[in-house]
Amino acid sequence: MTLPANGQTVLVVGGGPAGLRAAVDLIGLGIKVVLVEKRHELGGAPIRWRYKTLAPELRPTEEVMAPLISAIEASPLVTIHKSSLVQRLDGQAGDFRAHIGGEGGRATMADVQAVVVSTGFEHFDASRDPRYEYGRAPNVIGIHELEGMLTDGKVVRHDGRTPKKMAFVFCVGSRDRATNSWCCTICCGVSIKQAMEVKELLKDVEIYMIYIDIRTFGLWENLYWNSMEQHGINYIRGRVSQVFDTGSQLLIKGEDTLVRGPFEVLMDMVVLSVGVDPGEGTAQAAKAIGLATNPFGFLQPKHPNVHFDSAREGIYLA
Amino acid sequence: MTLPANGQTVLVVGGGPAGLRAAVDLIGLGIKVVLVEKRHELGGAPIRWRYKTLAPELRPTEEVMAPLISAIEASPLVTIHKSSLVQRLDGQAGDFRAHIGGEGGRATMADVQAVVVSTGFEHFDASRDPRYEYGRAPNVIGIHELEGMLTDGKVVRHDGRTPKKMAFVFCVGSRDRATNSWCCTICCGVSIKQAMEVKELLKDVEIYMIYIDIRTFGLWENLYWNSMEQHGINYIRGRVSQVFDTGSQLLIKGEDTLVRGPFEVLMDMVVLSVGVDPGEGTAQAAKAIGLATNPFGFLQPKHPNVHFDSAREGIYLA
Repeated sequence: MTLPANGQTVLVVGGGPAGLRAAVDLIGLGIKVVLVEKRHELGGAPIRWRYKTLAPELRPTEEVMAPLISAIEASPLVTIHKSSLVQRLDGQAGDFRAHIGGEGGRATMADVQAVVVSTGFEHFDASRDPRYEYGRAPNVIGIHELEGMLTDGKVVRHDGRTPKKMAFVFCVGSRDRATNSWCCTICCGVSIKQAMEVKELLKDVEIYMIYIDIRTFGLWENLYWNSMEQHGINYIRGRVSQVFDTGSQLLIKGEDTLVRGPFEVLMDMVVLSVGVDPGEGTAQAAKAIGLATNPFGFLQPKHPNVHFDSAREGIYLA
Repeated sequence: MTLPANGQTVLVVGGGPAGLRAAVDLIGLGIKVVLVEKRHELGGAPIRWRYKTLAPELRPTEEVMAPLISAIEASPLVTIHKSSLVQRLDGQAGDFRAHIGGEGGRATMADVQAVVVSTGFEHFDASRDPRYEYGRAPNVIGIHELEGMLTDGKVVRHDGRTPKKMAFVFCVGSRDRATNSWCCTICCGVSIKQAMEVKELLKDVEIYMIYIDIRTFGLWENLYWNSMEQHGINYIRGRVSQVFDTGSQLLIKGEDTLVRGPFEVLMDMVVLSVGVDPGEGTAQAAKAIGLATNPFGFLQPKHPNVHFDSAREGIYLA
């Protein structure tokens, strides 16, 4: 790893939390930054999906993201290209030339000494799995959509009524060879955090978490205990085979894998704990910049378990 | 974060994988390193406990660690103090003076511009939990001891016989308010890796994994599937209440939490999937250097979820 020196320039691809954090650290070292973001705004998934808080510390998104975004927007060391892509990257470590522009449009050139690629993740599109009626039943939503409701302080059904019974279905688009075979690592913790936030908002709602394994690793374990002991959240170990929209409610059919039998429950709202996919811009950036992706489409680090170096000298992953 | 420049010196506290990796990266930038290691040898837990391979990629420990250790030992930029501690750290970011010496002995002074503290982890001492007979029944061992056996290519009972039935008990000293309340994150993956390695060595051994939840998050999920599909490893969802040494075998009593009933099984060997505790040198280093620890004794980063900055300027965690 060779880092650029004070006064040199680094290209940061992606303006989500990781890209912004990298950019703030770089300008702190006196390094110039060219920031390229595919969308019209900075902030990535937390801003796009209007996350209320970030797990597991439950810090408000605003408190974490606003200082990063304003530091970048105010810095004379940073040039920002929104609604833009890196179309091509020529040269080599210490002497890259990036072609930056809109899709198909004319490119601006930027000479940079190193590149940080932080194209992030996207929430799994649950309409890819027909079992859950996502995209058809209006009271079936994803955890990313629930975040927006929590931010608005208003968790309601499509008809405006307050849900009395609510289920979270874990591992949608995760640990499932029909869609994504890996574990997304975070949907357990995020869902448990959300369940507690819903319970604070709607005192008499009943919440059921339908899970394969509870994966609150490390210090997230406290969230799991608090959710049961302080918030009365219920856990069902099971697998959902189908969600049916009855018109007024949602019928969940599945197998309880703890007591070994089928179950059917009626819910007012179903929240799908969707997993993650590679970020929207990952495939395009990987191709334009010449980076390897793994069989699932995520950027491949040079060394397993060390997630900073790409296989191309002078290009780092964040 | 302010990084030292080429030619300046960084103190690295702890010569395990993280400290060695940090030192190698620093010398790559032309920065001098003073490395302080409490024990008589470099390499940390993988060397001390003779790990065979590192999960989840199953790379031989030797292949990962040997290049790090030899790069450090050969570099003219590195001064190594083995069997030594940092007794005190005076000064401030950019101008620290470290007092380095044996316990109680006379100190050598080193002037450094920044400090990296990498005092790592230690395997949970299972004799703290009397249920498992660890330290009394000779055929009850920990995953760290099994690594040494795998490295020797010889998994045998205390009496020299080959085990025909072997159980791994997950979450020993993890997810248990009587000992450690957090999830250690890694003992699922390491145990599954080891079970497959045992099966390759002893073709006709039966292996049972007794678990609360399987926490093979991210891409470790493949290990879990392979262990069942390619290696025939068995999984029992349950909690162990007691291990009894019958003299010739080990009787495990517990509750099967999948079919909801008690179970009793006889095993030839029991492997405890022990969790982690703060590294041996963590408490002493934290005190000498003036760093905060969390309620569990691990070093506390300045910002939650960002594990590099300590709360003291110029001192970094690895």
